[in-house]
Amino acid sequence: MRTAPPPEGARHTDRERREATPGGQCSGPARPISRYPVPSLDDVPADLRARMLEVQEKAGFVPNVFLALAHRPAELRAFMAYHDALMLKESGLTKAEREMIVVATSGANDCLYCVIAHGAILRIYAKHPRVADQVAVNYRKAEITARQKAMLAFAVKVAEASATLVEEDYAALRAHGFDDEDIWDIGAVAAFFALSNRMANLIALAPNEEFYLMGRLPKAPKP
Amino acid sequence: MRTAPPPEGARHTDRERREATPGGQCSGPARPISRYPVPSLDDVPADLRARMLEVQEKAGFVPNVFLALAHRPAELRAFMAYHDALMLKESGLTKAEREMIVVATSGANDCLYCVIAHGAILRIYAKHPRVADQVAVNYRKAEITARQKAMLAFAVKVAEASATLVEEDYAALRAHGFDDEDIWDIGAVAAFFALSNRMANLIALAPNEEFYLMGRLPKAPKP
Amino acid sequence: MRTAPPPEGARHTDRERREATPGGQCSGPARPISRYPVPSLDDVPADLRARMLEVQEKAGFVPNVFLALAHRPAELRAFMAYHDALMLKESGLTKAEREMIVVATSGANDCLYCVIAHGAILRIYAKHPRVADQVAVNYRKAEITARQKAMLAFAVKVAEASATLVEEDYAALRAHGFDDEDIWDIGAVAAFFALSNRMANLIALAPNEEFYLMGRLPKAPKP
Amino acid sequence: MRTAPPPEGARHTDRERREATPGGQCSGPARPISRYPVPSLDDVPADLRARMLEVQEKAGFVPNVFLALAHRPAELRAFMAYHDALMLKESGLTKAEREMIVVATSGANDCLYCVIAHGAILRIYAKHPRVADQVAVNYRKAEITARQKAMLAFAVKVAEASATLVEEDYAALRAHGFDDEDIWDIGAVAAFFALSNRMANLIALAPNEEFYLMGRLPKAPKP
Amino acid sequence: MRTAPPPEGARHTDRERREATPGGQCSGPARPISRYPVPSLDDVPADLRARMLEVQEKAGFVPNVFLALAHRPAELRAFMAYHDALMLKESGLTKAEREMIVVATSGANDCLYCVIAHGAILRIYAKHPRVADQVAVNYRKAEITARQKAMLAFAVKVAEASATLVEEDYAALRAHGFDDEDIWDIGAVAAFFALSNRMANLIALAPNEEFYLMGRLPKAPKP
Amino acid sequence: MRTAPPPEGARHTDRERREATPGGQCSGPARPISRYPVPSLDDVPADLRARMLEVQEKAGFVPNVFLALAHRPAELRAFMAYHDALMLKESGLTKAEREMIVVATSGANDCLYCVIAHGAILRIYAKHPRVADQVAVNYRKAEITARQKAMLAFAVKVAEASATLVEEDYAALRAHGFDDEDIWDIGAVAAFFALSNRMANLIALAPNEEFYLMGRLPKAPKP
Repeated sequence: MRTAPPPEGARHTDRERREATPGGQCSGPARPISRYPVPSLDDVPADLRARMLEVQEKAGFVPNVFLALAHRPAELRAFMAYHDALMLKESGLTKAEREMIVVATSGANDCLYCVIAHGAILRIYAKHPRVADQVAVNYRKAEITARQKAMLAFAVKVAEASATLVEEDYAALRAHGFDDEDIWDIGAVAAFFALSNRMANLIALAPNEEFYLMGRLPKAPKP
Repeated sequence: MRTAPPPEGARHTDRERREATPGGQCSGPARPISRYPVPSLDDVPADLRARMLEVQEKAGFVPNVFLALAHRPAELRAFMAYHDALMLKESGLTKAEREMIVVATSGANDCLYCVIAHGAILRIYAKHPRVADQVAVNYRKAEITARQKAMLAFAVKVAEASATLVEEDYAALRAHGFDDEDIWDIGAVAAFFALSNRMANLIALAPNEEFYLMGRLPKAPKP
Repeated sequence: MRTAPPPEGARHTDRERREATPGGQCSGPARPISRYPVPSLDDVPADLRARMLEVQEKAGFVPNVFLALAHRPAELRAFMAYHDALMLKESGLTKAEREMIVVATSGANDCLYCVIAHGAILRIYAKHPRVADQVAVNYRKAEITARQKAMLAFAVKVAEASATLVEEDYAALRAHGFDDEDIWDIGAVAAFFALSNRMANLIALAPNEEFYLMGRLPKAPKP
Repeated sequence: MRTAPPPEGARHTDRERREATPGGQCSGPARPISRYPVPSLDDVPADLRARMLEVQEKAGFVPNVFLALAHRPAELRAFMAYHDALMLKESGLTKAEREMIVVATSGANDCLYCVIAHGAILRIYAKHPRVADQVAVNYRKAEITARQKAMLAFAVKVAEASATLVEEDYAALRAHGFDDEDIWDIGAVAAFFALSNRMANLIALAPNEEFYLMGRLPKAPKP
Repeated sequence: MRTAPPPEGARHTDRERREATPGGQCSGPARPISRYPVPSLDDVPADLRARMLEVQEKAGFVPNVFLALAHRPAELRAFMAYHDALMLKESGLTKAEREMIVVATSGANDCLYCVIAHGAILRIYAKHPRVADQVAVNYRKAEITARQKAMLAFAVKVAEASATLVEEDYAALRAHGFDDEDIWDIGAVAAFFALSNRMANLIALAPNEEFYLMGRLPKAPKP
Repeated sequence: MRTAPPPEGARHTDRERREATPGGQCSGPARPISRYPVPSLDDVPADLRARMLEVQEKAGFVPNVFLALAHRPAELRAFMAYHDALMLKESGLTKAEREMIVVATSGANDCLYCVIAHGAILRIYAKHPRVADQVAVNYRKAEITARQKAMLAFAVKVAEASATLVEEDYAALRAHGFDDEDIWDIGAVAAFFALSNRMANLIALAPNEEFYLMGRLPKAPKP
């Protein structure tokens, strides 16, 4: 499994470059954030840049998925619109629950970027430092409700074997109080991250370092 | 596997209703085109309706995916934008080749709507009445080039096991003359239809009857 | 995936040869109907030739499976006897239902020849132009009865995991009114096409072109 | 997993009935040799009975597969003809090698009857008391030649994933000196037992007790 | 699949060496009992040797697993302690039942050594010459009780997909009268042989010839 | 998927009890650390307690696996001896590399306890805050060397399909400079955690809260 030379134009973050040098026992080759050329924020079309700056203001950094997919602005524009239509709207599912779906299905798909990045977001929304790791590895053993486990069982089935969905699967959700619109939400989030996981794996997208620790520590009390 | 009562608001096309009545040996319960309420063309937001009318003008009918997903206009808008960004743009892949990817990966995902609808489109673009059925069942035995088989092998791997992509997979495509942008196209089409297949399976989307025959007959000579 | 030179003696049909030449966007290498030498009808033993001529009279052509397997007359003789014992006899299953089993299990086994050839026969028997494509892709979404879906679920389990059959599987069929002899028929058709699919894949059997369109058009009214 | 009452007409062998009674630690419910009615030898059509008597003379007993499948004489007739066409004819493969294919693929399919019955036959033909158990569990670790391992790798691929056969698979056999007719034999034996395994699993066919020990002991010297 | 030269120090038993020479139709290359150097009994640390001599006294030979794992005495010591803690202690499961679990899960893992060696032990404990072969191939068809089938279904799930265990799996055992300690035993035996099977496959451990026949013949009456 | 009442005797840690009360958006039912009764440290046999206190001194707490498996002291004793024989000894693999194997194979087996607990240990040994999350999700994308990726590919094959190991797998490791003893170490660690993962899943072992954060923060400078 020879590691190919990074395609021209691939960018390392400064941080990654620095860290790679001293090398502990584990230092593999410094890894670019994508197999493909990554534009700088300045080269990104204005509308997309505006959205990225907005995220940066809130999170303190621009998630790599934005810059890496900006290699194809038209696709990124649709990607963000789809994401926002599902993840930011009003829903019978809390934002934490939608992120649980992302983390559980991305775990099933072995998608490094999405497990790490959305694991961080899940920790934040759920105000729970352990739930993301649990859901990523095995939702059946996570500290979540039985209703949420049923939600994730359906979502993982959409992710792995959607053609075999039968009435019983829908009925199991309804028994937990989910209505038809909730079920669309569950399935659609799983479906959208089926796309997202595959894009991340295709371009070997690396998570920003910041995500790994986000939401794991209690917030410092405000002075 | 009891068939649930169609959720309220689910619509049968007139044609389906009529056909279901006489019943041959195979007449199962008349099937709505979606598990969810399907808006009429008039109830669809203007921008989406315009796009649908455009397709209707060309194809003679509105593909069910448009009306069924219009139950959620914001999602459909992003869906169409993503679709167009990948399928209509200039590319190192012909339109027929991109449709081959759709058909092969939708076959791998057992997605009825996409195999039937995009099978029709593939027949039209490829001007070949048999290739869609072949690619849907087993691309290794299809009447296509070795280069196209390599393309589909990569696409199906993206569809089924994207986390296991390794350098050898990319190298195999480069050996057939695909460049990095072509590879993005191959992977991205497979990724987008990973989403699309799951949505179609989730809502039990039925293909328009017209698709089944499209592209199977030689065009009548113009008078 | 280099395409090997066809083994000596492999025959192209005239039609395939002609079609391959003009080449549209999809023209792969012209494909023989089998990896193995295919005898001409004249070289086939008399009893087998008689049976083939009988089919030819009815269908208008000799299905490729007959000529290709005639490379081994003793095996073909047993093959046809087994086929006829299952598919032509009186049964609690209609002929259309038996062909549904063939198409569903051949779809599960990704067998190009059997999906195309028996898909055509299914369309004819069921007098339904869409059912074969539906059953080949995903029988759970086909326009068939709940009873037929139960029948196909059992058949696909025989095709894919016969060792795991348990009492519940038989009971599910009995609940739909199938008796023990019907169950043998369902399982035996699935079993016979487990053989048939593997032979077709082994010799890379190509379907006759005629099958692709058969049963898709309404019959012209008699004058 | 409740054990269903044996369907009417199912027959226990005397031996099984006796053995079940004393009950050691393992005595489960006495098991009939088939889920279906089993005719007595006298009720079997003459041609089939003649063939069974011939086997009985050689082996000392009638293998259960014959009597159990005789519930459907026309199918059994074709079954035996197919079996004989493959297993008794001249071939580039020894009879022991053909039985190896049966045992390896029946092991892959978890078919109790075929592993036990053909394991016995393999021991006899190979004059080797251990090879059948080895091939049934894991042919890669069996005391057989590298050529035979290649043969079994191909056969198991035919059994489990025939649609994915590619040129490399055929080439690997040719590298070991197998010619095209040998390859047909390998694939066809695997294909025929794909049918046979499924029938045995469908009817829950029990192996004759005699098979378990056959070929395990050195032959007593002739006086 | 070239067979690598046996690593230095690998030992053939005398018997294997002799048998390999005359060669019947099946004589593959003579196989060492392990890929790794195998110490002679004299070179084994005293405590382990004492345990081996004890087994030898009872069985008439030293099972290959002992000598082969003695290449790493500390690991073997723990291995034997674990084995004895599970397999020799008082339990709600009989010794025959625990060996059934070993054979069924080793069959699922295709482990030649464990199927052959523990198959022999199962025949002895169960006083039943056929049960081991049945359980190794397909426990659903074995001559065992419904309770034992439920036990094996749980054990095989532990072997193959332990992360998916849910309450229903435990409840199914309790319905057959297994208590929580019995369930630990069932799961722990399956878990221990998950280790054991992998070690045997890793070092290509060959079963002693003696195991193949043990327990298959009625004991000679004492004079 | 109703959560069963914790078996009698199951103990909650104080911390878990407290945390469960306030309940954020994600608070599922407070989860015991095992389905089985968990002894207090005082009730554990002296030798095992001594070992636990040693770990407690170093880590600040007793890992749940010790207390939970102490329900069966003889098994725990063997478990710890086996663990130490593999993980603490001199080896051609660093301790970080052995923990990588644990994390990668536990990820493949979806074992929550082992991914979280050994992920923490891996971060400590590797002095790398991100490597554990990466290896748990997809080692192919982790910041590790090509040699380590080869090591993990072999380990995961031992975990998932040890019966299919062939010479090429061993050769691939030797090409990276691993010798036969290193290969034993790689395989044996994967094999031991095959056992460990199944035990943890069987008893629904919950990781100590402390593990989730361990090794993620830079060490505070010593005063």
